[in-house]
Amino acid sequence: MQIAFAEAAKGESTWTNPKVCAVIVKDGQILAKGHHEKFGGPHAEINTLSHLKNISDAKGADMYVTLEPCSHFGKTPPCVQKLVEVGISRVFIGEVDPNPIVSGRGIKYLKDHGIEVTDMDCQSEINESYNFYYQKKRPLVTLKYAMTMDGKINQKNGQRSIITGQTAYQDAQKLRSENQAILIGEHTLKVDDPQLTVRIKKMDFPLIRVVVVDSADEISTDMKIFQDTSSEIYLLSKQAATKQFPDQVHVEVGDWTPKEIVKFLAEKNIESLLVEGGSHLQADFVAAKLLDKVVVYLAPKIFGGNALPAIATDSQAQAIALTEPELTQLGSDLKVELRKAE
Amino acid sequence: MQIAFAEAAKGESTWTNPKVCAVIVKDGQILAKGHHEKFGGPHAEINTLSHLKNISDAKGADMYVTLEPCSHFGKTPPCVQKLVEVGISRVFIGEVDPNPIVSGRGIKYLKDHGIEVTDMDCQSEINESYNFYYQKKRPLVTLKYAMTMDGKINQKNGQRSIITGQTAYQDAQKLRSENQAILIGEHTLKVDDPQLTVRIKKMDFPLIRVVVVDSADEISTDMKIFQDTSSEIYLLSKQAATKQFPDQVHVEVGDWTPKEIVKFLAEKNIESLLVEGGSHLQADFVAAKLLDKVVVYLAPKIFGGNALPAIATDSQAQAIALTEPELTQLGSDLKVELRKAE
Repeated sequence: MQIAFAEAAKGESTWTNPKVCAVIVKDGQILAKGHHEKFGGPHAEINTLSHLKNISDAKGADMYVTLEPCSHFGKTPPCVQKLVEVGISRVFIGEVDPNPIVSGRGIKYLKDHGIEVTDMDCQSEINESYNFYYQKKRPLVTLKYAMTMDGKINQKNGQRSIITGQTAYQDAQKLRSENQAILIGEHTLKVDDPQLTVRIKKMDFPLIRVVVVDSADEISTDMKIFQDTSSEIYLLSKQAATKQFPDQVHVEVGDWTPKEIVKFLAEKNIESLLVEGGSHLQADFVAAKLLDKVVVYLAPKIFGGNALPAIATDSQAQAIALTEPELTQLGSDLKVELRKAE
Repeated sequence: MQIAFAEAAKGESTWTNPKVCAVIVKDGQILAKGHHEKFGGPHAEINTLSHLKNISDAKGADMYVTLEPCSHFGKTPPCVQKLVEVGISRVFIGEVDPNPIVSGRGIKYLKDHGIEVTDMDCQSEINESYNFYYQKKRPLVTLKYAMTMDGKINQKNGQRSIITGQTAYQDAQKLRSENQAILIGEHTLKVDDPQLTVRIKKMDFPLIRVVVVDSADEISTDMKIFQDTSSEIYLLSKQAATKQFPDQVHVEVGDWTPKEIVKFLAEKNIESLLVEGGSHLQADFVAAKLLDKVVVYLAPKIFGGNALPAIATDSQAQAIALTEPELTQLGSDLKVELRKAE
């Protein structure tokens, strides 16, 4: 099962699907392994069967699969049918699928068709946001910011301050690539003029870009974010808007509190959200206690006066306890990863 | 010489004197070693000679001494005379003494009296602030603060916020014990009501306590700092004052900028100053670029709104580059030590 989990983690383009690997074992020998490679593509179980020399080898074999096999018609037919059809005799499952469309039904189908099923209850973290989404019915929220040793994220000169070095930048890009949506506030959009894309690799499923604004009509279509057409952009606008934006841009009017934003994204099946600033938007999420992880990149400098604190000091945000700080040195910067204490 | 430096570091009560160790070697054997144990007590060289079985063993022996032997009458007679007297034939010196009262004169005296002298130029860090003081003519300034993961040092409720845990507290006490003076601002005095002492061990030379205030007359004599009589207290007051304070308290009236504070302490032979807040005093030192080291204790929590940033945002403090972050995990807190970049 450890081999299977390690292999499952290779599925970098599964998007909102879980990462899964299956291994077929017979007489103590691994006959085949395969993982779910890409959202919309064949599931791990089917990939694995296709890697057998002869499909007849599956007869009487054991399958170790990191996640409960699916029992429904989605983009592909149910895996459980196939497992029964090829004559797998025992299935060892790493984790029960938290998705209610499957959860327990896959196991039941297999058992009903004479396959011996063992739930190994592995509690792995490879599908952290997938599991979180189905348990909590909302995306896992990560606050991310780069700050100085005095807790500042920008100098107040209306220009973007470069905080961290190249290694931290690469790491922050990787963090983006592991999320399905990215969110910033209007001030950050205007000061940084970012594309909000992942630069370090081609994404099969680029992350959805979300910006909270006061009035979408006040946002210039010349901004860099609109030049990139690789993924959808949601402008969450407080005021009604009439302005014409490029095709990939959707203006949604509402009272966009963190709770409403997260609800909106949950309805779009977004399992993970990266909140990338600024200071007030982060503060709103802290105030709403809507954060699950915090990733801070610390740079060896002091900004001192006339600078923006990481979390706005004039906000309603109350103190929040975090836990389990994990440290990584990235060049001369430090990365600290924390979780909200339960 | 490595043995000597390790031994020298044991001198915890040398106060403004350097830590020094001397080792006597003859025919490849260590005959004696000794270190300077306490300010006012015998120097390392004399201690070492006293550890010889017979003082006549010194004749023709080598001495390894971490710092140039002194050549002046201070609290004790000059060591160089004694070395000549007992017949040491070669002296290996770790570092030349930066104190102008000695610097080079010790070596000259030894050479003039027929002793072979080798300067090993070791650049050790055991006398960092001693060396700094004589090179820069001012104390080494360390800014120290405990902050949350959003760079806040206190909640704005007029009460002291507990930021870090017990392990970080112990470490911060140790940091105090390694400094000769400690400085805070008036707001910190009033909110925290600290004693500014070292609690974890009995100090032979407790650190001098300095508080910058607007008007000493406005400071209550009931504060805890005045109850502790173990060391001098300097109230650096902007306004003239008439109030009667306990004997250990000195009110000094002046325009107490960081530059003036540091000059005042330099005249008192203070080689190391720990600036312990608050937010505005730290900002003043950053603005004056009068800081050499920064020690930050990072706690796994977010304070959010209505909280004080580590360095006041409404100050004139400009950005300062730091370097070489050194990390220590202290319980669930992190310690980051940095230096001002040259």
